[in-house]
Amino acid sequence: MDLKEKALKQHELWQGKLEVISKAKVETSEDLSIAYTPGVAEPCRKIAEDPEKVYKYTMKGNTVAVVTDGTAVLGLGDIGPEAALPVMEGKAVLFKEFAGIDAFPICLDTKDVDEIVKAVKYIAPGFGGINLEDISAPRCFEIEERLKAELNIPVFHDDQHGTAIVVLAGIINSLKIVQKKPNEMKVVINGAGAAGIAITKLLIKFGFKHIILCDKPGAIYRGADWTNPAQTKIAEITNPDNVKGTLKEVIKGADLFIGVSAPNIVTEEMIASMNKDAIVFAMANPVPEIMPDKAKAGGARIVGTGRSDFPNQVNNVLAFPGIFKGALKCRKQITDKMKIAAAYAIAGMIPESELNEENILPKPFQPGIADAVAEAVIKAAEEE
Amino acid sequence: MDLKEKALKQHELWQGKLEVISKAKVETSEDLSIAYTPGVAEPCRKIAEDPEKVYKYTMKGNTVAVVTDGTAVLGLGDIGPEAALPVMEGKAVLFKEFAGIDAFPICLDTKDVDEIVKAVKYIAPGFGGINLEDISAPRCFEIEERLKAELNIPVFHDDQHGTAIVVLAGIINSLKIVQKKPNEMKVVINGAGAAGIAITKLLIKFGFKHIILCDKPGAIYRGADWTNPAQTKIAEITNPDNVKGTLKEVIKGADLFIGVSAPNIVTEEMIASMNKDAIVFAMANPVPEIMPDKAKAGGARIVGTGRSDFPNQVNNVLAFPGIFKGALKCRKQITDKMKIAAAYAIAGMIPESELNEENILPKPFQPGIADAVAEAVIKAAEEE
Repeated sequence: MDLKEKALKQHELWQGKLEVISKAKVETSEDLSIAYTPGVAEPCRKIAEDPEKVYKYTMKGNTVAVVTDGTAVLGLGDIGPEAALPVMEGKAVLFKEFAGIDAFPICLDTKDVDEIVKAVKYIAPGFGGINLEDISAPRCFEIEERLKAELNIPVFHDDQHGTAIVVLAGIINSLKIVQKKPNEMKVVINGAGAAGIAITKLLIKFGFKHIILCDKPGAIYRGADWTNPAQTKIAEITNPDNVKGTLKEVIKGADLFIGVSAPNIVTEEMIASMNKDAIVFAMANPVPEIMPDKAKAGGARIVGTGRSDFPNQVNNVLAFPGIFKGALKCRKQITDKMKIAAAYAIAGMIPESELNEENILPKPFQPGIADAVAEAVIKAAEEE
Repeated sequence: MDLKEKALKQHELWQGKLEVISKAKVETSEDLSIAYTPGVAEPCRKIAEDPEKVYKYTMKGNTVAVVTDGTAVLGLGDIGPEAALPVMEGKAVLFKEFAGIDAFPICLDTKDVDEIVKAVKYIAPGFGGINLEDISAPRCFEIEERLKAELNIPVFHDDQHGTAIVVLAGIINSLKIVQKKPNEMKVVINGAGAAGIAITKLLIKFGFKHIILCDKPGAIYRGADWTNPAQTKIAEITNPDNVKGTLKEVIKGADLFIGVSAPNIVTEEMIASMNKDAIVFAMANPVPEIMPDKAKAGGARIVGTGRSDFPNQVNNVLAFPGIFKGALKCRKQITDKMKIAAAYAIAGMIPESELNEENILPKPFQPGIADAVAEAVIKAAEEE
């Protein structure tokens, strides 16, 4: 049985990967009168008096909504909220397994930005955090920005920031190997969607100065007439020489290539045109922008992908469970400083003695990652 | 420690009565690749092709949203969505414990009818059913009606219909004892909110002809200038002689009194003014309209309350777990016929040999109630 058949069969057996269970024993009338009426009135009263107490007496503080509109699900695109549910359930499974967080899928039957923002605000009282998932760009940017501004619980679009954090972790460790400095490096990022734009922003915050972001037509430059608002905006802080040109043209001399785009669009020759000790993150899934063996043949020193069957897997699960564990605990909105701290924590999971070209990122099941990330996030929040 | 302190202490220990756990084992990369990417793409694809398959591959079919706006929580009133959360968690606990249903609290931060309807419609893709809870009257009527019309999953406002079904179950068994016929009986119902109006409607469907519904000012009659739209409408099908008067006046000669109102508003004398073999359901909580001993002293033959420490407790938990279990299985909107079938199933849990004035309703923990109700609901749905 291949993986597809296996996954299908298993999903049919599960009929839902999540279960909502009770921590409260309910076997007698007295149990009922404590977990439900009339006893339950007492915590209700306390919360009505002091809304902060919702964190003391309810599930809110450890509960995250995994919210999607089903418009950008995996590589499948706009398949709708029902068809997105298996992914959201899976995400909730990872929240629980990697960080002990109770996450619940919310699949929204609207694609309208205003309506999504409203819907999430309406359901927010029961949740301690909002994980936005698989919402297409550029809508995802406005939705996240508005929710961050209007809600008092952490909001995090994982497709943007989860990926950005883990890539940054990989870069932090790569730089130790290639001995280069961010402000002296040329970076080319291909794919100006949610992840590409978030990676760009985080790398700038981290200290990279020379980033060229490309989309299908080529480099994004100031004055381009084919960019969406998010891309137009990012052109202001990238591409310092305002070059035009295809990916093939602009990748020349780059120290770092990051692909969040499409399979097989980078050739061995293109890698060969990069600077010495090139670092390549080819994260298109399941088929990367260039296969690791080819990238290596082209001269790349370090290669990461999105796949678990190659070294250096960039896997969001390294970041989001710990990010939320930390953010739920400190009850702060997630800032760039917290994201960078998380990246350092992930990078720090590889001891210097074990660090090498094939081992720049920890494996998801390495123990302690979520706790280390959570701790770093809380510390960063305290410093702010 | 009294019950209040105990409940508070226990809620602090729980910090949430619910937990969202994974049915999927996630211990290896292969586990991950089946429960999450890339394997999860396969059920997504199948659902995108055929939306019906969401019931085959996801949690939808066994999952219920417990939706409130926090406006009519227990006897506490409009305490807001956060303060309502302990009750909604408790409700979800009961769904799981009594019917194996995965229920999740959705506490809405809006009181606007249109916005509530929209919010529930937006989140509906991930749920197999909607349980409305503790939404104040008369808004609850419109919200439920619109959602039933606009959604293709069962919608049920438990404060209305759960109570109505269990009261009807109690009445069905009471009638066996007092040997009266519904169409020959005079019924007085006090409290024209969500429960009172729903009880009235269900009793009419069941065959009662002479019902007088009262609210604070007294009997609701055609032409009253103090009624809300829902009350004005129900005046059309109740109070056949269009009498005016206080509860004390109209209760005279009644065979059946149902209170869903306020503590201690019925006196022994008022019960004494009722017909022979009077049946009294005094369900104000925690203090009933009249205490059972007083009602008995006034001449009532059968007395039910909302309390577990007296005989004949009218407890919604007898109905809603089985109602949803049945409705989720047959995937039908819940009709009056299904509700009446549920009431017969609940009444049928007391064998004739054990039926007496102090034993007209089963105890919540009697095994098999939810299954019997579910079966009756499915059978009724099939007949329709």
